Amino acid sequence: MKIAILSTVTAVALMATPLIQDAKNAGLLPIPADKKELNKLIDNPKNPITKEKVELGKKLFFDTRLSKSGLISCNTCHNLATGGVDGVSAAIGHKWTANPHHLNSPTVYNAVFFSSQFWDGRSPDVENQAQGPIQAAPEMAATPEHIVAVVTSMPAYVKEFKKAYGDKKITFELVADTIATFERTLVTPAPYDKFLAGNEKALSKTQQRGLKTFIDKGCTTCHTGIALGGEMQMFGVVAPYKYAHIGDFKGNKDGMVKVPTLRNITETAPYFHNGAVATLKEAIQEMGRIQLGVEITDKEAADIQAFFKSLDGKKPAITYPQLPACTDTTPKPDMN
Amino acid sequence: MKIAILSTVTAVALMATPLIQDAKNAGLLPIPADKKELNKLIDNPKNPITKEKVELGKKLFFDTRLSKSGLISCNTCHNLATGGVDGVSAAIGHKWTANPHHLNSPTVYNAVFFSSQFWDGRSPDVENQAQGPIQAAPEMAATPEHIVAVVTSMPAYVKEFKKAYGDKKITFELVADTIATFERTLVTPAPYDKFLAGNEKALSKTQQRGLKTFIDKGCTTCHTGIALGGEMQMFGVVAPYKYAHIGDFKGNKDGMVKVPTLRNITETAPYFHNGAVATLKEAIQEMGRIQLGVEITDKEAADIQAFFKSLDGKKPAITYPQLPACTDTTPKPDMN
Repeated sequence: MKIAILSTVTAVALMATPLIQDAKNAGLLPIPADKKELNKLIDNPKNPITKEKVELGKKLFFDTRLSKSGLISCNTCHNLATGGVDGVSAAIGHKWTANPHHLNSPTVYNAVFFSSQFWDGRSPDVENQAQGPIQAAPEMAATPEHIVAVVTSMPAYVKEFKKAYGDKKITFELVADTIATFERTLVTPAPYDKFLAGNEKALSKTQQRGLKTFIDKGCTTCHTGIALGGEMQMFGVVAPYKYAHIGDFKGNKDGMVKVPTLRNITETAPYFHNGAVATLKEAIQEMGRIQLGVEITDKEAADIQAFFKSLDGKKPAITYPQLPACTDTTPKPDMN
Repeated sequence: MKIAILSTVTAVALMATPLIQDAKNAGLLPIPADKKELNKLIDNPKNPITKEKVELGKKLFFDTRLSKSGLISCNTCHNLATGGVDGVSAAIGHKWTANPHHLNSPTVYNAVFFSSQFWDGRSPDVENQAQGPIQAAPEMAATPEHIVAVVTSMPAYVKEFKKAYGDKKITFELVADTIATFERTLVTPAPYDKFLAGNEKALSKTQQRGLKTFIDKGCTTCHTGIALGGEMQMFGVVAPYKYAHIGDFKGNKDGMVKVPTLRNITETAPYFHNGAVATLKEAIQEMGRIQLGVEITDKEAADIQAFFKSLDGKKPAITYPQLPACTDTTPKPDMN
């Protein structure tokens, strides 16, 4: 009996090992379990991650007072409680304004692994990205001067900047860099990573079948690397996107669109750049149709969806910050 | 030398002790340091506090999907990062609508100690209060049916309700009760409480002078009890409020207005029911003028303001929640 069980285990192992190899051949990479290795990947040599910067960056990330109205923080659209997104099709910002291109807020979790930021990839890294929404009129609608005035009006913030950066001047760019340093730590290792690292049992049979289908259908052409996404690709290669009429986004000047990460994808509905697709099933099948020119059956989509569950990652534990109190010189909220 | 130091300490103690007695005579009460005693005070016998309810209530408190738009949570207006308030004069809710009466969001910290809730005191407790903003059109704009549909669409929530309440049916009222259970735990012991409990050194000399002035001027007529507020009182007793023209709030049917707590007051600007006063100094002096008919000098106001710093409490450590993912049956956000 013991021998029988053992040989079953061996058989499973033998069956699953090629799948890990297939995955690696398709360019799929785990989030390294080794902390040093991971830190090398997520760090910014120009502005190395330190505990002080991360703690301060977290505060700034959650601080609604950086916005013109005093009501919108980075976390409003990139809500760390809900997969790093806001769950609405087009981001809503200052004065309840929807994103003018009807663009969906991408997740901030694992964004550090993307080769570029924003749907059109116009930003090289999270430091640069963080400067965008803070200033965008339909998002946080603040000016760099407002940001510096808010932060420097609160002695507790000034003290924390000093702790993090010494005598470096507090500028808008430094605030964005600090937020980005926090964002660099928002990585979410998942059962899938254990699987890629050699633990076949980390994925159920259905999930393994889903991963195999995912690779075989060619999904890894775009959804690859650590983030299973994050690179620029053509969109609607084989057939036009069913919901292309919603919003006016056509990609960058070459028609390229950023491939969203699939990590935590079960938490980040609705899908695609215009958030027009509500369900993963439709998203998977639409991708097969317009990107790969293949039909993905309901059964195959269900398997792939099961595989996606293995990409649900463990989020870093975040203590909700206590922010410094406003002072008499803190700029007043402006609703208009 | 040793003797000299000792007698100085004794002298300070002798000087300060009457102030503690004065404070007690004025009805000022500490948040009990004893956990059992505190728990008795904050508990709801009809729905006793349990770990499971508090954890679930925290999730619901932070869950934006309870709102019609999917963008507004209890925490939006009662932000636990900023003294339990939003920092704007009138609350802003669904579709960027300001509170129609220009009412300022009161803090949720220590609200459990208030004898009634809302500025007009129309609600007896936090359980009842929690039902209001969720449904109010200019706030979260949801219906009870929406709330139940959202919560029951996510198996992880259903499981947590089962853990907290067994087979009790998930109703809108139960959701509100659960949020309230979490809110009951939001108490913030401060140096002031240590002072009232007998530790004279917990307050600086300036703060003690401020407390004495606070009592002597008569502020404790209204700002008393554990919360230094939370009861109903006439507003503008001696002279009309300078900013009465902002908004149309005139109190309850008897013209009574809820006295705001002074705990964490340094963090909850702007002040008064219509949030018309930006600074504590003006708030203190305006109170003297319209409620007590006394002039509070700049020096006295500064002392009182120093005393208020001793009311800045230690907030409960809150791990930012990871919320259950939406499912295909979760009601879709509605921006209109």
